[in-house]
Amino acid sequence: MKLAAHARPVRNVLQASAAALLLLLTSSPSSAAERDAAHALQVMPLPRSLEPSQGLLVITPAGALSGFQLLVDPLPGRGGVGTDTRLQSAVQRLLVRLDRTCGGDVLRSAAAPVAGRAQLEIAVEAPGEAVQSLGEDESYTLEVTPSGGHLSAPTVLGAMHGMETLLQLVSFEDGACVVPAVTIHDAPRFAWRGFMLDVSRHFEPVSEIEHTLDGMAMVKLNVFHWHLSDDQGFRAESRLFPRFTAVASSGEFYTQEQMREVVAYARARGIRVVPEFDVPGHTTSWLLAYPEIGAGEHITTLPVTFGIPQAELDVSSEKTYKFLDAFLGEMAQIFPDAYFHIGGDETEGKGWLDNPRIAAFMKQKGFSKPAELQAYFNQRLLPILARHHKKMIGWDEILNPALPKDVVIQSWRGEASLVQSAGQGYQGLLSAPYYLDGQKTAEEMFLADPVPADTTLAAAQQKLILGGEVCMWSEQVHSVTLDSRVWPRTAAVAERLWSPQADRDIADMYRRLRRVSLSLEAAGLTHISGPQQLWRDLTRNPHPEAMELFASMLEPVSFSDRYQAQKTDRFTSLDRLVDAVVPDPPSRQELAREVDAVLLSRDQEAARRLAARFTAWQHSEPELLSAAVSSPRLSDMRPRVHQFVTLADAGLEALAYLQSSAPPPPGWRAAKLAVIAEAETPVAVVRFTFLPSLRRLVEAAAKDHQQEGRP
Amino acid sequence: MKLAAHARPVRNVLQASAAALLLLLTSSPSSAAERDAAHALQVMPLPRSLEPSQGLLVITPAGALSGFQLLVDPLPGRGGVGTDTRLQSAVQRLLVRLDRTCGGDVLRSAAAPVAGRAQLEIAVEAPGEAVQSLGEDESYTLEVTPSGGHLSAPTVLGAMHGMETLLQLVSFEDGACVVPAVTIHDAPRFAWRGFMLDVSRHFEPVSEIEHTLDGMAMVKLNVFHWHLSDDQGFRAESRLFPRFTAVASSGEFYTQEQMREVVAYARARGIRVVPEFDVPGHTTSWLLAYPEIGAGEHITTLPVTFGIPQAELDVSSEKTYKFLDAFLGEMAQIFPDAYFHIGGDETEGKGWLDNPRIAAFMKQKGFSKPAELQAYFNQRLLPILARHHKKMIGWDEILNPALPKDVVIQSWRGEASLVQSAGQGYQGLLSAPYYLDGQKTAEEMFLADPVPADTTLAAAQQKLILGGEVCMWSEQVHSVTLDSRVWPRTAAVAERLWSPQADRDIADMYRRLRRVSLSLEAAGLTHISGPQQLWRDLTRNPHPEAMELFASMLEPVSFSDRYQAQKTDRFTSLDRLVDAVVPDPPSRQELAREVDAVLLSRDQEAARRLAARFTAWQHSEPELLSAAVSSPRLSDMRPRVHQFVTLADAGLEALAYLQSSAPPPPGWRAAKLAVIAEAETPVAVVRFTFLPSLRRLVEAAAKDHQQEGRP
Repeated sequence: MKLAAHARPVRNVLQASAAALLLLLTSSPSSAAERDAAHALQVMPLPRSLEPSQGLLVITPAGALSGFQLLVDPLPGRGGVGTDTRLQSAVQRLLVRLDRTCGGDVLRSAAAPVAGRAQLEIAVEAPGEAVQSLGEDESYTLEVTPSGGHLSAPTVLGAMHGMETLLQLVSFEDGACVVPAVTIHDAPRFAWRGFMLDVSRHFEPVSEIEHTLDGMAMVKLNVFHWHLSDDQGFRAESRLFPRFTAVASSGEFYTQEQMREVVAYARARGIRVVPEFDVPGHTTSWLLAYPEIGAGEHITTLPVTFGIPQAELDVSSEKTYKFLDAFLGEMAQIFPDAYFHIGGDETEGKGWLDNPRIAAFMKQKGFSKPAELQAYFNQRLLPILARHHKKMIGWDEILNPALPKDVVIQSWRGEASLVQSAGQGYQGLLSAPYYLDGQKTAEEMFLADPVPADTTLAAAQQKLILGGEVCMWSEQVHSVTLDSRVWPRTAAVAERLWSPQADRDIADMYRRLRRVSLSLEAAGLTHISGPQQLWRDLTRNPHPEAMELFASMLEPVSFSDRYQAQKTDRFTSLDRLVDAVVPDPPSRQELAREVDAVLLSRDQEAARRLAARFTAWQHSEPELLSAAVSSPRLSDMRPRVHQFVTLADAGLEALAYLQSSAPPPPGWRAAKLAVIAEAETPVAVVRFTFLPSLRRLVEAAAKDHQQEGRP
Repeated sequence: MKLAAHARPVRNVLQASAAALLLLLTSSPSSAAERDAAHALQVMPLPRSLEPSQGLLVITPAGALSGFQLLVDPLPGRGGVGTDTRLQSAVQRLLVRLDRTCGGDVLRSAAAPVAGRAQLEIAVEAPGEAVQSLGEDESYTLEVTPSGGHLSAPTVLGAMHGMETLLQLVSFEDGACVVPAVTIHDAPRFAWRGFMLDVSRHFEPVSEIEHTLDGMAMVKLNVFHWHLSDDQGFRAESRLFPRFTAVASSGEFYTQEQMREVVAYARARGIRVVPEFDVPGHTTSWLLAYPEIGAGEHITTLPVTFGIPQAELDVSSEKTYKFLDAFLGEMAQIFPDAYFHIGGDETEGKGWLDNPRIAAFMKQKGFSKPAELQAYFNQRLLPILARHHKKMIGWDEILNPALPKDVVIQSWRGEASLVQSAGQGYQGLLSAPYYLDGQKTAEEMFLADPVPADTTLAAAQQKLILGGEVCMWSEQVHSVTLDSRVWPRTAAVAERLWSPQADRDIADMYRRLRRVSLSLEAAGLTHISGPQQLWRDLTRNPHPEAMELFASMLEPVSFSDRYQAQKTDRFTSLDRLVDAVVPDPPSRQELAREVDAVLLSRDQEAARRLAARFTAWQHSEPELLSAAVSSPRLSDMRPRVHQFVTLADAGLEALAYLQSSAPPPPGWRAAKLAVIAEAETPVAVVRFTFLPSLRRLVEAAAKDHQQEGRP
């Protein structure tokens, strides 16, 4: 199905569909204005500036026979950008998505253009660079009035961002598809807005990578950092070194065609692809395939366990540099980005110290610690990368004054480490607070700022902070659960990296996050449907209502808590209760709001709703206990079910005492707080989301009577 | 992750885990026996013979540290089949799936074998033919006793079928993973048990094809009939004729590597792949790419509409045969199966009659009708196919006495047509009753038998009926909805084609169908989650309860009813209400059972449940009406919502009159029946599933009082 954007010579085709518009504006101006403002604020990430004005642009009027018309301005005097294939593809995707929101007329109309009408004009000045560069102009302006929409941008990148904003503004109401009148001037705060995916610990197929890139584009992330090798597997096909995938991938790897496909797919969405091949540590898979470049550790198989292994490259040997030169040169042909990630993390260097030849080399060079040898290694890598036209990026550990100032330091150790490298004049990226497997809330991740308002860095040093990267390590995720760990929280970080520093309204962020979450799911991600599938699969019940209720009140413990409790390794099944619950579910806030309404507003209706909620928890017990014995994957759930019901009892009792004239009996408060405290300890590697709210309720029920001195 | 099946030299390793077993058998023998029988009957399709006996085989005992051990008998004297790679892969998949049912110990144990224990032994006599043949032995025997399981088969095909049966028998209960003791001797009734997928009208990616093959293997279907070309698109890459995909595929096609991958994937699951290239009609895509072999119709684009086009190959020209010889030869290299499907349906031949040269050719040959020219074409194709070592299969229209008796006729016209071809000595397949887009119930499809008990065919002619094929034409489905049209109904037909003729117990079929449906979904098909995703997407609500309730009481109208109502074409969006409801949902039977309980057993509890159900329908109205205005894709839903609530009112009133001593007022019965009759007319191309049950309830409420003569 080919539907090239309909191109016309000049801009004078903008016309309003006035009759249909009048129909729509029969509602009172003030309510329309309110509605417009609400529309405008659905955008995520928030634009640099957004001014709502009055009225609506009608995309497809109610009951109209003629549909949507779009003009891509070819600006003939400036090089014919309207014929840019990347822009054309982006416009085609825009039409397909508008069609879904606005009904089947958009594509049909665009395929059969009518002279003299266009609701939307897109004007782009230049196609953008052949290889997307760091700092390339991503700005755009979007002006929507009742008589037409105009999206303009200096490059195709900006135009694509503007299209995502436009799609977030469109809604279908009263039979018409409309966009509120608005003026948006937008550009990113940080130039490097990344998402890192580890495909070594658990592999992800190309289709999942592409869905991820779709999601990234929707929230204006622009760097896909692809962690392609680690101890547990080597995932990139090399033709020069075929043993990488032949013996060290378990058959799970990307062919060179697939990697090129991913690069093209990303470019088409304004996303750079930065590959990472982690050296000189985290290289067990390298050394299983090519022991001759290793420090001497005898590797016979890919590791079953995770953690820091002892398998380093022999960085004292010229053979290793020759190997790396050839390999990196091959990969440089596939990945056109200016940056190449060399990892560099967690190299303890015990293998170096244990190897007499390498120990002698260190002594000869005057190195007393492995870190110095690693710094030597990085210096040796620099000219190799430069020969292949690449700049270096690596994790914290590569930071060393011997390196030139155009390397980028990615901080997994935290803000202090980032400040330190910027202080030394290095460019940096913040990652520590954006580790998804920490299972922190969207709120916590959103508030972490690469350059906080109270930064100690001088203005010039602040400029060295290029942005940040959300990181998804995959020891504890696989295809089924990946999306539910990544989304929607990643959208909150995307806003942090794009939007102004002053954007810190948590409630508003969550409101928009819930909406963008649905759009992400509709675009093919499975963070909502994935867990639902797991509940169904775990319970063998097509409508596992009790399980859904129970799961909605739980979240996974952090990576390290799970690692400690389960000693997770590659045989750990990732389809148990902990995998079927999601981080930061809405229940935490819902309970808090309901308890607020009861305690602060004495809202009787809220009290009834809360009581109904606790009663539903009690009623879920038989189905949950039956599920717990139906699958070994739910066998650790039973104690949590018991707690769930006991907590429901506590909630109902607290509500009753709040309504009653009789005080709780002596010891009631302590007993209930003990129940809550017990529920706070980790069981089945999941935790309840609502315990602080329940504690407030219990405390209030006890206090209420104390303060008011009732009998 | 490589986990080769653990092979041992002899069979003496079968040992019971006696202690754990005793623990399990503490329940009374009679209840255990009942449970065993229930287990055994979860199998779908039903085996040829199944004898439950007493006790359970413990796969992974409760709380045990040592896990599952499996022995693949290499039978060294008979050729070392245990080392057959297809068998090894099948065993590996068995372990992965057992691991999911039984907990993470199965894979871990299999990876670290312990001497002297094995719960399951698999013995296979021969690897099977290099290219799976029609009629190849698919039988197997599965014997399970408390002391061990033994699966034996003459070929790997039978062993794979036996593994699917075993997996259906396994369950997790009281902390142990168990298989009931049973003896099964199984073999298929029909040798050709197919599923046809049209990928021309809407394309399906390779991943969807592979999921479909997984589902087919689970219910023992053995032929994937791949409809690779039609008017709307040509989906197979040809290197000799690259314009097929360059201009006539819209970029959606399978590369030769992908087609070989599908063939290998299918073979690994005991499934033959029969490609179809439909000639000499349904060839618009052919003639867009290569007009020189056409009858003269001027084709400029792929069709937007569906239906029978006018675009035939020029079957009078030698050029056409030379082209087909080269093309079929190329495809024969990719598809090793003995059969090649040449389509042949719906060739009206108007283009032949309109072309003076072809008309003259017909006259010269003495043909008065296009059908005769098509018969000539088929005769010309025969030696071409034979040269490439292929036998011919085609639709009804190829039937002609001039063809040899080893061609296969696939009947889309119906049973009479099949009987006719068998009467003439041709082999045949039944397809007409198995068209999924007819939206018939699983029951109707299951009862349609290629050789019914009352067949008029003689025994020798009956043998010519090779089996049947479920057909999925794709004018009205795409990736998101495909699975919900295909599954679980296809499993019911799979049972018809595999199991004995006498297997006609509808209630028992549905009981097992509901269970296999969950297993299919767990294996990666999305017939349950797909519609849920659509409801969420249509309503932009993560928990669209009212929508789910409403949708569960609806089903799509038939292909032709939708085609008439919507004039569907390639721009018709396939994500509306009709796409979000599924054929033959459980609600039809649930309502019937509840009404039975109320009317036949005067069951008060059932009456309360039914009343609660009707009340929930009433309460769903505001959410449904709000959804109807929120998306253009739900805009046709409003009248159905109104009917839904009105029908709920009728149900509640009927229940009230059934309980009351007062009769309904005059005209009540007629008014309610009119409401039901109105709801029977098609609206929004969906129909209610429960109207016959509601009518019975209304009639009973009116009659009750008449008969019993209450005041």
